[in-house]
Amino acid sequence: MAPTEAEQHPRRVVALAAHDASGRLTPVRISRRDTGDDDVAIQILYCGICHSDLHTIRNEWRNALYPVVPGHEITGLVTEVGKNVKKFNVGNKVGVGCMVNTCQSCESCEEGLENYCSKIVLTYNSQDKDGSSTYGGYSDMVVVNERFVIKFPDGMPLDKGAPLLCAGITVYTPMKYHGLNEPGKHIGVIGLGGLGHVAVKFAKAFGMKVTVISTSPEKREEAVERLGADAFVVSSDANQMKLGCSFKALSVVEYLAARGTMHGIINTASASMTMYPYVLLLKPRGKIILLGLPEKPLQVSAYSLAAGGKTMAGSCMGSIRDTQEMIDFAAEHGLTADIELVGAKDVNEAIERLAKGEVKYRFVMDVGKTLNAA
Amino acid sequence: MAPTEAEQHPRRVVALAAHDASGRLTPVRISRRDTGDDDVAIQILYCGICHSDLHTIRNEWRNALYPVVPGHEITGLVTEVGKNVKKFNVGNKVGVGCMVNTCQSCESCEEGLENYCSKIVLTYNSQDKDGSSTYGGYSDMVVVNERFVIKFPDGMPLDKGAPLLCAGITVYTPMKYHGLNEPGKHIGVIGLGGLGHVAVKFAKAFGMKVTVISTSPEKREEAVERLGADAFVVSSDANQMKLGCSFKALSVVEYLAARGTMHGIINTASASMTMYPYVLLLKPRGKIILLGLPEKPLQVSAYSLAAGGKTMAGSCMGSIRDTQEMIDFAAEHGLTADIELVGAKDVNEAIERLAKGEVKYRFVMDVGKTLNAA
Repeated sequence: MAPTEAEQHPRRVVALAAHDASGRLTPVRISRRDTGDDDVAIQILYCGICHSDLHTIRNEWRNALYPVVPGHEITGLVTEVGKNVKKFNVGNKVGVGCMVNTCQSCESCEEGLENYCSKIVLTYNSQDKDGSSTYGGYSDMVVVNERFVIKFPDGMPLDKGAPLLCAGITVYTPMKYHGLNEPGKHIGVIGLGGLGHVAVKFAKAFGMKVTVISTSPEKREEAVERLGADAFVVSSDANQMKLGCSFKALSVVEYLAARGTMHGIINTASASMTMYPYVLLLKPRGKIILLGLPEKPLQVSAYSLAAGGKTMAGSCMGSIRDTQEMIDFAAEHGLTADIELVGAKDVNEAIERLAKGEVKYRFVMDVGKTLNAA
Repeated sequence: MAPTEAEQHPRRVVALAAHDASGRLTPVRISRRDTGDDDVAIQILYCGICHSDLHTIRNEWRNALYPVVPGHEITGLVTEVGKNVKKFNVGNKVGVGCMVNTCQSCESCEEGLENYCSKIVLTYNSQDKDGSSTYGGYSDMVVVNERFVIKFPDGMPLDKGAPLLCAGITVYTPMKYHGLNEPGKHIGVIGLGGLGHVAVKFAKAFGMKVTVISTSPEKREEAVERLGADAFVVSSDANQMKLGCSFKALSVVEYLAARGTMHGIINTASASMTMYPYVLLLKPRGKIILLGLPEKPLQVSAYSLAAGGKTMAGSCMGSIRDTQEMIDFAAEHGLTADIELVGAKDVNEAIERLAKGEVKYRFVMDVGKTLNAA
C-alpha cells in the first residue's frame, strides 16, 4: 500500500488524545500534513469543548476511532497558505467548525449543503480523503482546505467566538431555513445549555420574542436577566416526561398562556420526550426543530401535528456559506457565547463538569497559552 | 333559551343519518336554515364517501354527535342566493368541502388558513355559530355561507370532481406548502387509496417523478399503468411494520435504489409505523407529510431526521383559497378522482366495502338521482 499523505509529510504536533472509552485525555504527538496548494495552516489558539467531544471520546456513539483528538470549535491564526489559496493570508483570524472536507461534487455539495454530503469528512474521528485520520482542535495546529475555513471579522473574539462554529451554526441554520429568524415572531428554546443559550441570543438579535423552556426553575433569572429572554416556562423533570405527564407537570399558568403562541421551538434537550405538550405551544404551521439526539425514538402523535399543520424537523450543523454568514451576523451584533476558559491541564475536569451540566455555557480551552505547558 | 335559527326557519329535507355507533345509515328528515343574506342554497347532486365519514358514524374518533349526516365532498347546483352574495348565481356548479364556517377574524382566518381556525365549523358533526348541528352531504340540499363554497369550472365533472373537495385538497395543500409541486422533483406516495391515488395524479400533473410505496404487490400494475406512477416499491405488511422490521422487509432492490432520492413523501397510511425506513428514502432536506392519523404515536428517531435535515410534517385539509386553486388546477389538467358511483340505497354496503379497502378509489353517492327514491 502506498504511504498516505500524512505519512509522506509527517509534521508532528502536540495534541490531547483519548485512547479508550474512559475518555481520559493525555498529551500525545500527532501527524499533520504539509500545507497543500489549497490548504491553510492554522496555529490554534482556542477550541470549544462541545458535548459531541464527550460523546465521542467516551465512545457513547459507538464510533470512536482511537486515538481521538476531539475539538471542532477551533479558532486561531493563519501561519501558512498554499499557492492556490485566495481567501486567506498569513496572520488572518480564522475558525474551523465541524467539517474539513466533503466530496465537493454531489448534489448536496453543489447546492451549498455540504454538511449533508454523504462523504463528509468531520474535523475529528473521521477519515480524510487521503486515508489519514482527522484530529481536532485540542492541538497546536491544523491544516485545512481553505474552502472549510471561516474568516473571523475583526470584532469577533477568538475565545468567545469559537463555540459559534458548532453551537452557533447548529442553531442558526434551522432558524434561518425554517423562517424562525424574523422580527416579531415568537420562538421557544428548550434547554439552556451550550446550544440553548446561543439560540436565545440569536433569536434576540433577530428581533424575536423568546421563551425559554427548562426543567430547572432556578434558571429563570439567568434566562431573563442575563440572556434577555422574554419569558420562561418550567417543564417537568425527565422522569415525569418519561411517564408521559409532562403536560400537567409544566408550570400550568405560564404553560397555558404560551399555548398556541409560538412560531417555532428549538429543542436542544437530548432526553427522549413526548413531544405532545410542546407541539401544543406552537401556532398553526409552527415548527419544532430537533437538535438533541436522544438514543430512544421520540413519540409523536400524527394527530397533534396534523391538527395545526405543524412540522417537526431535524437539523445537523450547517453549510460553510451559512457558517460564514452566521459569524459575520454575530460580529455585527456583538453576539458571542458565554464561556468559561480552561487550561489544557484542566480539560479532563472540565469534561467531567460538562457531563454534569456544570458550565455556563461552554468551556473553551486556551490552547495557545496552555497546551504546550500541559 | 331563544329558538335557534334552524328552529325558527325549519326547512325539512331528506338525508341519510347514523343514529348510533353501528354506523348504519337510514333515511331521515332534517332541518336546513333559510338562505341568509350571505348564503348559497345548493341542490346536492353528488357526495363522496370519505374514510372520515366511516370513522365518525361508527364513533371511532369518540366525537359523534348523533344523529350524524355525513358527507363533506359535496357537489351540486346553486338554487338560491342571499342578497349579499357576489360570487355565485342560481344554476352555478359548486362544491362544499370539509368546513362551512370559521370565526373569520382570528390570525389563521386572516392569513387565509381558516382550516386551522380554532372555531372551525365542520360540514357535519359540528355545531354551527347559531347553535344548530351541521349535517353533511348525504342529503338533498344544504345552505352555506358563500365564503365556504367552491366554484366548479365547466370542465370539472360534479361526480368525479366531488372527492377533490376533501381527498384532493388534503394532498394538494401540503404538496404546495412544502414545495412538493415542482417539475422534476421526486415524490413518494405511501398508500394507494382515496388520498394516495389523487396524490399520484397531482404529482404527475405537477410534472414530478412519482414512486408509489404500498403493502400490496398486486397494486403495482394499476399504480404504473393506470395512474402513471414512475416506480413502485413494496413495503412490508402491517404486522412486520409493528415488529420494526419494515426496513428489511421492503422489496430490497427497489428500496435500495430509491434510498436518498425523494424530495418528499406523502404518507396516506393510517397505520402506526416506524418512520425510519421511509425517512431513509428522502434526500437531504426531504419532507415526509403525515396525512393518516393512526391512534398510536409514531416512533421517530431524532437522529434520522437530523442526519439529513429532514422534516416530518402534519397537514389537515386546506384553505378555501387553496381549494379553489386546486379545483381550477385540476380542471385545467383534466384531473379527477377515480370513482365508483353508488345509489343511496347501497350506501351501507359501500361503507362496508370502504372499511375493507375494496374500492378504486372513492365511492361517490349519486344523491340527485337516488336519495329521494331510497
